[in-house]
Amino acid sequence: MTKLRTRTAALLPMILASVGVSVGLAHGDEGMWTYDAFPTEKVKAAYSASPDQAWLDRVQRLSVRLDGGCSASVVSKEGLVLTNHHCIIGCVSNIDSEQTDYLNKGFFTAKREEEKQCPGAEASILQTIGDVTERVKTAAATATALDEQAKARRAEIAAIEKECVGEDSATKRCEVVSLYRGGQYKLYTYRRFQDVRLAFAPELQAGFFGGDPDNFNFPRYAFDMALVRLYEDGKPATFDDALNFSGKGADDGSLVLVSGHPGSTERLRTVSQLSHLRDTFLPFRLIYLSEIRGSLLQHGRTGAEAARQVTDDVFGIENTFKNFSGRHRALTNPAFFAKLQANEAALRARFESDAALKAAHGNPWADIEAAQKANESLWLPMELLETRVGGGSSLVSYGRTLLRAAEERAKPAADRLAEYSDARLASLERRLLGSSPVYSDVEAIKITFWLLKVREYLGADHPAVKAAFGNRTAEQIGQDIATNSKLADAEARKALWSADAATLAASTDPAIVMARLIDPFGRAVRERTEKEVNAPTSKASESIAAIRFALDGDSVYPDATFTLRLSYGKVTGWLDPVLGDIPAYTFAKGLFERATGAAPFNLAPAWEGAETKVKPDTRFNFVSTNDIIGGNSGSPILNLAGEIVGLVFDGNIHSLGGAYGFDAALNRTVSVASPIMLEALRAVYGQDRLADELSVK
Amino acid sequence: MTKLRTRTAALLPMILASVGVSVGLAHGDEGMWTYDAFPTEKVKAAYSASPDQAWLDRVQRLSVRLDGGCSASVVSKEGLVLTNHHCIIGCVSNIDSEQTDYLNKGFFTAKREEEKQCPGAEASILQTIGDVTERVKTAAATATALDEQAKARRAEIAAIEKECVGEDSATKRCEVVSLYRGGQYKLYTYRRFQDVRLAFAPELQAGFFGGDPDNFNFPRYAFDMALVRLYEDGKPATFDDALNFSGKGADDGSLVLVSGHPGSTERLRTVSQLSHLRDTFLPFRLIYLSEIRGSLLQHGRTGAEAARQVTDDVFGIENTFKNFSGRHRALTNPAFFAKLQANEAALRARFESDAALKAAHGNPWADIEAAQKANESLWLPMELLETRVGGGSSLVSYGRTLLRAAEERAKPAADRLAEYSDARLASLERRLLGSSPVYSDVEAIKITFWLLKVREYLGADHPAVKAAFGNRTAEQIGQDIATNSKLADAEARKALWSADAATLAASTDPAIVMARLIDPFGRAVRERTEKEVNAPTSKASESIAAIRFALDGDSVYPDATFTLRLSYGKVTGWLDPVLGDIPAYTFAKGLFERATGAAPFNLAPAWEGAETKVKPDTRFNFVSTNDIIGGNSGSPILNLAGEIVGLVFDGNIHSLGGAYGFDAALNRTVSVASPIMLEALRAVYGQDRLADELSVK
Repeated sequence: MTKLRTRTAALLPMILASVGVSVGLAHGDEGMWTYDAFPTEKVKAAYSASPDQAWLDRVQRLSVRLDGGCSASVVSKEGLVLTNHHCIIGCVSNIDSEQTDYLNKGFFTAKREEEKQCPGAEASILQTIGDVTERVKTAAATATALDEQAKARRAEIAAIEKECVGEDSATKRCEVVSLYRGGQYKLYTYRRFQDVRLAFAPELQAGFFGGDPDNFNFPRYAFDMALVRLYEDGKPATFDDALNFSGKGADDGSLVLVSGHPGSTERLRTVSQLSHLRDTFLPFRLIYLSEIRGSLLQHGRTGAEAARQVTDDVFGIENTFKNFSGRHRALTNPAFFAKLQANEAALRARFESDAALKAAHGNPWADIEAAQKANESLWLPMELLETRVGGGSSLVSYGRTLLRAAEERAKPAADRLAEYSDARLASLERRLLGSSPVYSDVEAIKITFWLLKVREYLGADHPAVKAAFGNRTAEQIGQDIATNSKLADAEARKALWSADAATLAASTDPAIVMARLIDPFGRAVRERTEKEVNAPTSKASESIAAIRFALDGDSVYPDATFTLRLSYGKVTGWLDPVLGDIPAYTFAKGLFERATGAAPFNLAPAWEGAETKVKPDTRFNFVSTNDIIGGNSGSPILNLAGEIVGLVFDGNIHSLGGAYGFDAALNRTVSVASPIMLEALRAVYGQDRLADELSVK
Repeated sequence: MTKLRTRTAALLPMILASVGVSVGLAHGDEGMWTYDAFPTEKVKAAYSASPDQAWLDRVQRLSVRLDGGCSASVVSKEGLVLTNHHCIIGCVSNIDSEQTDYLNKGFFTAKREEEKQCPGAEASILQTIGDVTERVKTAAATATALDEQAKARRAEIAAIEKECVGEDSATKRCEVVSLYRGGQYKLYTYRRFQDVRLAFAPELQAGFFGGDPDNFNFPRYAFDMALVRLYEDGKPATFDDALNFSGKGADDGSLVLVSGHPGSTERLRTVSQLSHLRDTFLPFRLIYLSEIRGSLLQHGRTGAEAARQVTDDVFGIENTFKNFSGRHRALTNPAFFAKLQANEAALRARFESDAALKAAHGNPWADIEAAQKANESLWLPMELLETRVGGGSSLVSYGRTLLRAAEERAKPAADRLAEYSDARLASLERRLLGSSPVYSDVEAIKITFWLLKVREYLGADHPAVKAAFGNRTAEQIGQDIATNSKLADAEARKALWSADAATLAASTDPAIVMARLIDPFGRAVRERTEKEVNAPTSKASESIAAIRFALDGDSVYPDATFTLRLSYGKVTGWLDPVLGDIPAYTFAKGLFERATGAAPFNLAPAWEGAETKVKPDTRFNFVSTNDIIGGNSGSPILNLAGEIVGLVFDGNIHSLGGAYGFDAALNRTVSVASPIMLEALRAVYGQDRLADELSVK
């Protein structure tokens, strides 16, 4: 699955942007292109045809971002939106209970009134892209020190966003996006939807047939689709257009386009940065995720309700784990890494022989290496005490958000942490006050685990460890917060959201107490990281981007930034080095052949006995060469007529190195084919009401 | 902790030996020297004194190997043996129950009759070392193909061992040890003890104060000692001598010697082998261990009895995890790795300029690289289907041992798997028939986990996965074996140990069925690994060893092979790059200062209120520069007078890279000081009966 996970992604500082370039393994259909710079001529040269401006304008207007970390598209004029089941699994968990068990039984509606709001969910549709590069750069140039420049830049960005959104924050979203690592700053404006309701979700087992073993693999039989509806003022949002479905889907070899929101790529990381990822960061994260995966899986084995409660977390962890595994595998592939090294060496050699460029830029690679050196003692406390404080505990996260909101709101805009800018407070409030369930057992497990890792990695003598532990065990603290914090109650959070810093400082709620104990350490390491690592890295990366522009022109696309992009490619299988020839399509009959009856290869309830209801040769899943990454989940995959031929839900295992470089021979996008969606909605799920809303060509 | 774990170590094929050399970071007190080649002159040069031959002969006779993976020493003429608590934790678990809870309460005896036999435990004392190099090499030379040579070598080794042990297998052990990667073959004969009884074990919390957070760290306050007694014919074994204790211990800066059994070092691995470890193998193992760690810890949180049942496994996993983390950290340290690369490059350059050597040896580095290439598709199935089959499940392990024993015994000696040679069958039988408890819940967790990893890493379509899973889930299979296998009963195992292959082939015991399903895949991948990886690697490694001998002479020590070695060094702290100056000693008062009351920093029961019973300035733990590694746990650390000044139980965090190279500035051995052992045995534990048996100088 290629989803960016909600909780982790949403509360992180903004993703760094960078210039995307081929690693030179093969160019092919590489590129996550912005809508204002789509390479029409290049596509025409390869495919004898390309979308025109009308196509681009229409598809942009109907492409949806689910702000938790997914993509989607408008498929009816009454606001019906198509996305992946795995993109709304968080919503299902949030509205679910032991009695309803929508997760395993599916969520079905007989009439519109039964559609249920997804707590905290938001959606955005891109309206305009404007250039604010000069304004941001001018503001930054008023300061001399790097960290002062960064601060001035952040303040200007906050001001631009605030100005743009004005009084319309309920229905409008404004984001300044840094492209080409600060080479460009663009102002993206969105139509904002704060009322997203679930209309149709199949059973988890249908969406995720084959489970973790088949995830990122192919051949595949996942019915990974869901339908939500956007509401405004309590009524379905209306659109003057909607994407149509292609009844037959796309043929092998045909041109297809993916319109969606790739989250983050790192295709111009330097070798020193990539070495850190390969040797240190990725192994750390994989090891960290594995242990909590083991704990949650084991807890889930203690009973059906425990299993239900851990599902969403396990899903997210396994997905991220496999994703990072793929990245680690790519970077530890000697040929892949050597190629990245050779590319950097070639660029540096050209730079070295250009006196003017050298005079202008010094040695940005050495600057990044120095920042990496500074990062050696910072990244681990940054990770444990700031980025991942609480280890995924909702309670500790609520505690910190409340504490910081009170403190940050009292500061001038320029001095605030980025995620507490005026423009972002509304989203933050929404997420904070959404009524997501908090499972006490799961909270205790996460907090305990996090505390144990803080102590394991920072050592028992670290002052943050002494502060957090006091004279208690990790288990006792986890249990205390899970049992005694009142922050599971949205009303309690609401009361504190408007409280002042003094109130938060005096709170005895154990989740707030823990947030307070850790906060000075988190802020301190973040400040040092921003000053000693991020600021010089950002400056040097800008230089490298500028050097590349000077040498190669602007025939490159920016790294992914969870903003709307279009990627082109064709439907085709691949020749796998281990598995041999992999065909482009699977068909319905294959699902019934692969089903063993044992999880995760059991059929979902609705599909049991459905062998006679769907035509055996209905296209089910397929692969194409489009260049995508996490965040693209739920993207429509379209033909030249602008019809939906499928629904992107995954990349193959080889696509995971795509974070660092694109390999056209092996990287594949995996989609649910339009024919099985149309057929199963009616024949398997009896959702004629919704199917009738779709337009099929 | 530096213990080689019992179950994993014991059933593995023999550890490969290799030539040990400095990585050139610093020589200092490097070296794990065999008793027949101790560098007396070198020690004299550094310390103006050195043990003489009488010292060596005496200490050799009183040095004990605990065959589960530890070292020990004879400390009374009536067979009392000193080792670490963490070395007998398996024994404690095996004789323990929910009622007795020796693990947490300690095991104490008022009279000799209360000493309890450790199921399956064995001990050995080295008697003689003979040279059988010519005989083994001559036998191997009869074949031409590499794998045939390896087979002939194995057959000859089995014949030598069988001949040596004759009819005395109950009291004698004969092992052919390959030193210098096959440069030498030595026949080690041992006096064998099959009746090892526990005499004294403190509480786990005393032995492991500070728990996993303090493990491999210093300053430290672990009372990691235990006493066992060797028995023969139901009576205490008698010795004509025993090691004395030094009442005051060793002073800072004084020469100290560690006599013990380092398990395995890899100090002449080539860069291609080290890259595989750094990039692939170590991350895999760390990730694998983390998940099962999470599962077992979580299971342990469900109740006190569950916690007790998982303790031994968690202990072993965390210990191995930290060990491998240290190794990974060393190899991903750019300076360390660059040094290893530079050393190899220097050796190769000298080799390249020596025409005679080149003519004799070709290009062994390229041969190893080719073997590494072949290993790429083999190591993972080898790991999952052969080396770690069953994922640590006792039941599946019993099943496979029984199945293979029946099959292998029917074959001529030369055709058998190495661990089923006649000489080794006795030990195998002993381990198999020992009455270790089998905990059904823990078995189910391990089997389930193992099956899930087999499927995750080999893919759902791998034939071994299809065979193992059939139409069931991993959880169902794990539960079935854990609940329905009869192999938890030692009598049931005994009955099958003498059964023939046909009986095993017909067994419906689910553990045997699982072993049978996996066995063809395990055997096949092992055969390929031996032929395509081990045989050429072994041949090439021999060449590299020979090249080094030719260029550098024999002033090098062999890599560790879990055979008796002596290492010299001095008591001294170190200057830590992060923590600053670390002193050599801790003292009793520090224990009481560090105790927070919360696990793992709570005092063990006997130590609560003991602050007044032990002198505050009693030396507690100390560090020294001796070159040790896993397997050295329990080694006596001695002064020049041959008195015990301490008991080795750990290395500091920097010592973990010692698998690949020794860094004298940072690597430290960690020991329990003799004064606290003598004082606490009486004052804290009231074990006067045992204390009286010890001789103190």
